[in-house]
Amino acid sequence: MSSPTSKRAGQVWAHVGQPFTATEFDVVIIGAGRMGAALALYLGQLGSGLPEHSLSVLLVEEGGLPNEEGATILASGVWTTLDLPPAQHARAEWTRQQLETALGEVQFQPRPLVALYPDAEPEVQPTREVLAPFPEALALIDPDRLPFARLDAQAATYRPASVALNAAQQAIKLGVNLLLNTRATPSLGGVRLERLTVTNTHQIVTHEVVQVRAGQVIVAAGAAGASLAEHSLGRHIPHAEAYMQYPQLAFASQSRTPTLRVGPLTLRPAHGQWTLEAQPAHRDPPNYQPCGGKLTGVPTGLRRELLELLVAQMEAVPALASEKLELGRSLSDIAGAWVSLNPFPAWQALGDGVYLLQGGPNADTLGLSVAYELAGEVGKAACGV
Amino acid sequence: MSSPTSKRAGQVWAHVGQPFTATEFDVVIIGAGRMGAALALYLGQLGSGLPEHSLSVLLVEEGGLPNEEGATILASGVWTTLDLPPAQHARAEWTRQQLETALGEVQFQPRPLVALYPDAEPEVQPTREVLAPFPEALALIDPDRLPFARLDAQAATYRPASVALNAAQQAIKLGVNLLLNTRATPSLGGVRLERLTVTNTHQIVTHEVVQVRAGQVIVAAGAAGASLAEHSLGRHIPHAEAYMQYPQLAFASQSRTPTLRVGPLTLRPAHGQWTLEAQPAHRDPPNYQPCGGKLTGVPTGLRRELLELLVAQMEAVPALASEKLELGRSLSDIAGAWVSLNPFPAWQALGDGVYLLQGGPNADTLGLSVAYELAGEVGKAACGV
Repeated sequence: MSSPTSKRAGQVWAHVGQPFTATEFDVVIIGAGRMGAALALYLGQLGSGLPEHSLSVLLVEEGGLPNEEGATILASGVWTTLDLPPAQHARAEWTRQQLETALGEVQFQPRPLVALYPDAEPEVQPTREVLAPFPEALALIDPDRLPFARLDAQAATYRPASVALNAAQQAIKLGVNLLLNTRATPSLGGVRLERLTVTNTHQIVTHEVVQVRAGQVIVAAGAAGASLAEHSLGRHIPHAEAYMQYPQLAFASQSRTPTLRVGPLTLRPAHGQWTLEAQPAHRDPPNYQPCGGKLTGVPTGLRRELLELLVAQMEAVPALASEKLELGRSLSDIAGAWVSLNPFPAWQALGDGVYLLQGGPNADTLGLSVAYELAGEVGKAACGV
Repeated sequence: MSSPTSKRAGQVWAHVGQPFTATEFDVVIIGAGRMGAALALYLGQLGSGLPEHSLSVLLVEEGGLPNEEGATILASGVWTTLDLPPAQHARAEWTRQQLETALGEVQFQPRPLVALYPDAEPEVQPTREVLAPFPEALALIDPDRLPFARLDAQAATYRPASVALNAAQQAIKLGVNLLLNTRATPSLGGVRLERLTVTNTHQIVTHEVVQVRAGQVIVAAGAAGASLAEHSLGRHIPHAEAYMQYPQLAFASQSRTPTLRVGPLTLRPAHGQWTLEAQPAHRDPPNYQPCGGKLTGVPTGLRRELLELLVAQMEAVPALASEKLELGRSLSDIAGAWVSLNPFPAWQALGDGVYLLQGGPNADTLGLSVAYELAGEVGKAACGV
């Protein structure tokens, strides 16, 4: 339980100029997305409540905070229990309480979610009635083709990137150490840290390699996590990821406008406009280089699968057929990131003190709760119970 | 109905040295896989039965005959009605009659198919009983983990590559023209032909470009067909393809050994051993460059998705865990090809006299029948009815 850094407030070694002398931690967390940052916070809280159980924790992030490469900064941040299995409701409630009360300003805002259907479903109401107070939402769709609506009046939206940032900052105040711009790989009994720096020619190179010992290692590196764990441990871990895109739709939205859902497509009001998010139907192959598609011969930034999905919805959602849909000309025009596709956020023990923590499609609603459960597990293991 | 070549026996312009003087055909078929070749044959038969309805037909193939790049030469060639919807049974029967009687030597051979299940299904029998006469098949699996078996006693196997070759040869005898080593693209009112040749440095280059007029164009280019049609016509055509691999399993099989099916995996006796074929769960992205996977860190020729599937089946099919499974070291070690994923073979009219003809997973059982239906449609359209 003792280490050079365990009993003092956490440090941020953001730049490679600063010294890094620690050689041992109780827990190293790889990845400071919202799940990893939240786990760091909950481990810090564990120690602050019971000082005798205080753990030395190191949170390592390859990029910055919040990381601009990953899905955390692009995630839609929609909390909803619509279509969530009852077994997951307690986790959803716990996550919501944290978002509302414990994580500072994350732009948390009650905002109904309306799922629209072409055919009758249980608990539906007429679309025109449900959306009557929201003409800016009704303007996107054809209510004759989507006449049925289900309302989640309890839904809310927030900024997952703020969750990651605030959780990491609170964790540091509780004594967690943070290392940015550092690539981390689980290795025998610890973690190999490559501190990265940028050369004059804008190449990212390894400045320094440090090996630290760690009692427990949590891989929370988002979509890259499972294959990182697999390659480090030399063990077969089934996993699936996909490259998601988040195009803009330049119709007006307001702060009270509901989130809409049509089939696999979520339309989320954001910044006075809308952001589209399409749930991937299946994984992309490993080593797939995402690339733009072609719409009747014209290159787009949107990938082919997303184009097909949007074309299929254009009659029900005529807004998608307008020039206000951001098509882009090449992949780099459209915000996108790899996401892991496990149905619910989950952690798994990989043996030898290594854990894999993954978010996925329902991380907006359940992620913090799963991070908290893993914190309890890691705390127990560190105390040898 | 008249053209320079319509009333005489077909020609093969295989090599670029030979002259190509024709400028107009009633029908051009792009792709001489089994579907395209069968279509050419049925169009030829149409004319031989009713000379006044004789059509000038050109069959164009980018590679050779049979084409060694495509799925036809790798397809498992398993004819079975197990799990086939009743609406498709007539097509299956028609296809079988053709395979048995009309297409020459295609190594057609009755060979039962046994589907194995971990849990009870309708019409199952005990696996040990069903496989008792076939110890070489029983040796691959664990009958305690797959205790239930469904038998298709009517199933058969054959060589799809022989179907393509024989159909094309018979078509030529009936007056169909064949152009090999030629890339074809539908273009306004006809087809653009690029006759390919190989340079001293083994590069494939275009030797000559010819534009021919065509009353009707059928794109039967396998997995590449839909995107070829889409790009040529500038029209959005939803389509899905995947890269399939066909690894060998070096356990002994005999000529009477049944084909086995376990989940998405078909184990087909071939050449005294077994060939594996796993039905893709979903499409691969366009522009995906297939690549090998890694099994606990070791590079393999098998792609990641197939490795995960095989690992998941290793307890039920212990043979997969043996060193007799061909893993390969890089992609080129394992036979593989892109296949289209439409659930059943099908044709669709794209307008302006262009048709798309596609095989897919059930082409072994239904493909010839669908090619025959399209021949009737094309014949009717050519006669203006």
